[in-house]
Amino acid sequence: MDHLRIEKLNKSFFETLPHRQIAVLVDGNTHRFCYPLLQNFLPKHKIISISSGEEHKNLQTSTQIWQALTDFQFDRKSLLINLGGGVIGDMGGFCAATYKRGIDFIHIPTTLLAQVDASIGGKLAIDFKHLKNHIGVFQNPVNVLIDTDFLKTLPFEELRSGFAEMIKHALIADAAEWENIKKIDIRNADWTQIVSRSIEVKKKVVDQDPHEKGLRKILNFGHTIGHAVESFYLENTDLKRKLRHGEAIAIGMICESQIAKEKGFLSEAELLDIQGFILSLYPRQFIAPSEIEIIVSYTSQDKKNWGKTINGSLLKRIGEANYDIALSEKDMKDSLWHYKSLVD
Amino acid sequence: MDHLRIEKLNKSFFETLPHRQIAVLVDGNTHRFCYPLLQNFLPKHKIISISSGEEHKNLQTSTQIWQALTDFQFDRKSLLINLGGGVIGDMGGFCAATYKRGIDFIHIPTTLLAQVDASIGGKLAIDFKHLKNHIGVFQNPVNVLIDTDFLKTLPFEELRSGFAEMIKHALIADAAEWENIKKIDIRNADWTQIVSRSIEVKKKVVDQDPHEKGLRKILNFGHTIGHAVESFYLENTDLKRKLRHGEAIAIGMICESQIAKEKGFLSEAELLDIQGFILSLYPRQFIAPSEIEIIVSYTSQDKKNWGKTINGSLLKRIGEANYDIALSEKDMKDSLWHYKSLVD
Repeated sequence: MDHLRIEKLNKSFFETLPHRQIAVLVDGNTHRFCYPLLQNFLPKHKIISISSGEEHKNLQTSTQIWQALTDFQFDRKSLLINLGGGVIGDMGGFCAATYKRGIDFIHIPTTLLAQVDASIGGKLAIDFKHLKNHIGVFQNPVNVLIDTDFLKTLPFEELRSGFAEMIKHALIADAAEWENIKKIDIRNADWTQIVSRSIEVKKKVVDQDPHEKGLRKILNFGHTIGHAVESFYLENTDLKRKLRHGEAIAIGMICESQIAKEKGFLSEAELLDIQGFILSLYPRQFIAPSEIEIIVSYTSQDKKNWGKTINGSLLKRIGEANYDIALSEKDMKDSLWHYKSLVD
Repeated sequence: MDHLRIEKLNKSFFETLPHRQIAVLVDGNTHRFCYPLLQNFLPKHKIISISSGEEHKNLQTSTQIWQALTDFQFDRKSLLINLGGGVIGDMGGFCAATYKRGIDFIHIPTTLLAQVDASIGGKLAIDFKHLKNHIGVFQNPVNVLIDTDFLKTLPFEELRSGFAEMIKHALIADAAEWENIKKIDIRNADWTQIVSRSIEVKKKVVDQDPHEKGLRKILNFGHTIGHAVESFYLENTDLKRKLRHGEAIAIGMICESQIAKEKGFLSEAELLDIQGFILSLYPRQFIAPSEIEIIVSYTSQDKKNWGKTINGSLLKRIGEANYDIALSEKDMKDSLWHYKSLVD
């Protein structure tokens, strides 16, 4: 993936772009905080501004983006620059990949989560009636520009959320990095090096299996239960305990590590190592006993049929993972009870 | 493109499909006339039925298709079979290529137009606010099954419409086939051979340039003016002179051949040969003088800016074409006046 550049944004890169027409996709936040860092490096361009937040990653907002490209009379040789986090990259990429059957696009990820995860690997999508990433394509951007200066615009909680994916990358494929990760102080990190190493893990995996036929599934470690936890708190907004993605994945990694231990993959010492570090960094989420069954039901797309076994990815040991491991409803419930026992 | 099969539909093909879940996309016509020819060869499957016609090739109908796949709980290993003409193939392919970032799909084109043109080459798209094929992707089906028995279900006018693309294929790339084409009796043709030869032309072109960066544009011969004529009659429905696609392309081929002659590419004799054959087969469309300027305005996506030169594909001689030839507003107007002089 020679299209990936980890460097300070600079004028010379943008001067060489061959595109006739350029637009930058932003949301309110990246328009205000990130666009000023990019603006002066760009040739003449348009701006497309959309509402921020996962709840806008849908067909309605995509229609706005397609309409803007149409109104600007963009032809097939135009370029869309996606300046923002995962929502901007996923949706802007999808709209670009489908506008006139595909125009070029560049990702400039501005969150830690997007820099180490969402911008790498060509997954593009929007949500469809509350199903996450249900409509989309695989398509690589012509470039991903990673400038860790953008991370200075982020609050601690947002950095910590993205950091969960870096923990995941170390746990599934890089035991040495796991030792490094544990020493990082998020508030004072020198991000360029550690972001590079984390991306390296994801790149290796997706280069081997770009369309997620097999190996790429190991990147779902922590996400089977993590997504269910995230969806539960998203849809039950009256609970007023909306979790960030990484906070949910942190819970998912603890739960799925406990399952891996129960299945004899991880040692007790490894489980303690993992959950000790995660609990030292992430909020301890109270889960009511009555909520456990409901959360497990969110692991299945079809909530009517959720009693079925589903497949997940589990650690074999720290630094290595397996995919397509059957997880029963009981495995998952027990693991949430285990998490609950740690935080209560 | 070894995924293309020109043969009678047969059970043994469908028995080997590895897919867990299968749906067939039909419209009212193909459900009634074509599905019975397929039904008994298929393993267990679902049916998705949509309204027929180009006016339904849009996001709203796509949403219905995505919703049906979702309701059926189709996973990434499922299959969509598109049974119908260009609308079914274009839209069903687009929905399959974007459902969960892409499931397999098979085209079973049932019109002559779809068998020789729309089903070949991986172009998938829907219309967007009256802009044809504005949102889409390039993606090849896992198979294209061409059974010319379906052509028996079609009225003469529909066969003649598809035949226009076969004329085009001969004119742009196969001078020997042009001589054959002129002898074909559409009402009593042995389609399998001639459909195969016509597809051969399109395959050769799209294999060399799948994403239409250059050479593939020669397939647009007849379509710059033909599409404009088609759009004009589509949008001005009060004229009650709705043309079939191929009827509009037939007019486009005459006009663009006249431009090619004016530019010194085609000889007078070649022009007479082309227009003589086309006029012997297709209806002579009356065009009012006041309509010519309006039709030319439809050649530009941006109707406000339509005075600009646009690029088209013109015959160099019978059996060979060039692309990216500048066509002025005057070139196009003159050619429509020429057509008018032939048919008045």
